[in-house]
Amino acid sequence: MTDDTQAPIGIFDSGVGGLTVLKAIRARLPGEHLVYLGDTARLPYGTKSPASIARYAEQATARLLDEDIRLLVVACNTASAVALEALRAAVSPLPVIGVVEPGAEAAVVARPGGRHLVLATETTVRLGAYRRAIARLDPAAEVRELPCELLVALAEEGWTEGVEAESVVRRYLAAVEQSDYHPDSIILGCTHFPLLRDVIAACAPAGTSIVDSAETTARFVESQLADTAAKGVRGALKLLATDGASRFARVGGQFLGERLEESAIEIVDL
Amino acid sequence: MTDDTQAPIGIFDSGVGGLTVLKAIRARLPGEHLVYLGDTARLPYGTKSPASIARYAEQATARLLDEDIRLLVVACNTASAVALEALRAAVSPLPVIGVVEPGAEAAVVARPGGRHLVLATETTVRLGAYRRAIARLDPAAEVRELPCELLVALAEEGWTEGVEAESVVRRYLAAVEQSDYHPDSIILGCTHFPLLRDVIAACAPAGTSIVDSAETTARFVESQLADTAAKGVRGALKLLATDGASRFARVGGQFLGERLEESAIEIVDL
Repeated sequence: MTDDTQAPIGIFDSGVGGLTVLKAIRARLPGEHLVYLGDTARLPYGTKSPASIARYAEQATARLLDEDIRLLVVACNTASAVALEALRAAVSPLPVIGVVEPGAEAAVVARPGGRHLVLATETTVRLGAYRRAIARLDPAAEVRELPCELLVALAEEGWTEGVEAESVVRRYLAAVEQSDYHPDSIILGCTHFPLLRDVIAACAPAGTSIVDSAETTARFVESQLADTAAKGVRGALKLLATDGASRFARVGGQFLGERLEESAIEIVDL
Repeated sequence: MTDDTQAPIGIFDSGVGGLTVLKAIRARLPGEHLVYLGDTARLPYGTKSPASIARYAEQATARLLDEDIRLLVVACNTASAVALEALRAAVSPLPVIGVVEPGAEAAVVARPGGRHLVLATETTVRLGAYRRAIARLDPAAEVRELPCELLVALAEEGWTEGVEAESVVRRYLAAVEQSDYHPDSIILGCTHFPLLRDVIAACAPAGTSIVDSAETTARFVESQLADTAAKGVRGALKLLATDGASRFARVGGQFLGERLEESAIEIVDL
């Protein structure tokens, strides 16, 4: 448990996707200071070897430790799947929270022994992180993982509603339905997908739980803080990236739900 | 001019996209032996520095030279934009053909002094390669470049027709129309986009020329060969990749329009 409310929460991702997690944390804990690091120069992590991903995650963590963070959020499914335990060991006793476990836990709590559908990237599906996390928590649960790369592109383009998003989401869900798998819950297993939450909920059969892993991670962060900053004054926000301030500001602004200026992004070397 | 019809044509790309160029070359020159190298371990090139891209292109070229190629096709827009001249100098007198120039040339020949719309990736747009190539060939031409990342994702997912592809293409084209730019020609400025040619043609205003840069590159290749292999016997096809044989076979098969077995992909180190 950490109690220095002046120290920021550190959040890292390979790109801008983790900003949905940052947004959820800020909504829940508006007084906290936050520092975000997007390793945009080396994305996507998904095609890199586990050894490289672990090294990148260590470098990003080292940079965030320079900011005297009180807690680290690995807001990247690939790094969460590959490097979480090693990071925990390296920075102990600093709490380290990934995005996979909170989502898996929320899903099995909502639907014990249920059927879960994980929407994710090809890499996350290949790594099977949600499948393993759910099996650990609820051996009776069934899990199907569906790679949905087009949802990443829709989110990055900012096309999060309308006929394009709907037709794409419907086609992915129809493929699952045709295979006679009828999920009780849909887990948004990619940090990009909370942007498409409304359209996914609208296209899913009535009664399906939608588990937003950004929101569940934010709840988990709150539970780990012994003391939280006062809510009256909005905490400071620091944004770091390893490349492409202009794209980061444009796409990241959509993810954060507010206008970002290119000058607000500090480019750092890891 | 090269005349050893037993030597293969070498084709290289950062991924599977260049297989549309390979397919077009094979359709035009079915007797030619072809060797393709996809640098899948290091894609996307678009986020790398020009110096890195140039180095990757040199390494890929060196590997293809080991195959005794008679001609090199750089079937990658980013590498064509960044490294073509350096590669030409390095391997002279071996002919080196990129994908940008043939497309630009076909467009200005079809519509001299016309208005061109280049559909491309964010990186190709940022590099401005088509804009410069068209300006060199036809200073009276107008050019607008439109980043269309969702078309890449649609092509990789294999969703090249139907309501999803149509709604996405219509939205991109509507944005151009709303800005009061009415193109005479649409250039498919990404090696993924020939897969979406039919839907793009169907969504474009009647009378718009569609310039398929895979096809124009294949025509250019033919024009550079003094002697072509007999058409009666299909040439050999060798596929090399730097990572991910399974994904290469699955997605590449769609691009090539035929079933590829994972075992047919040779993984190489560069």
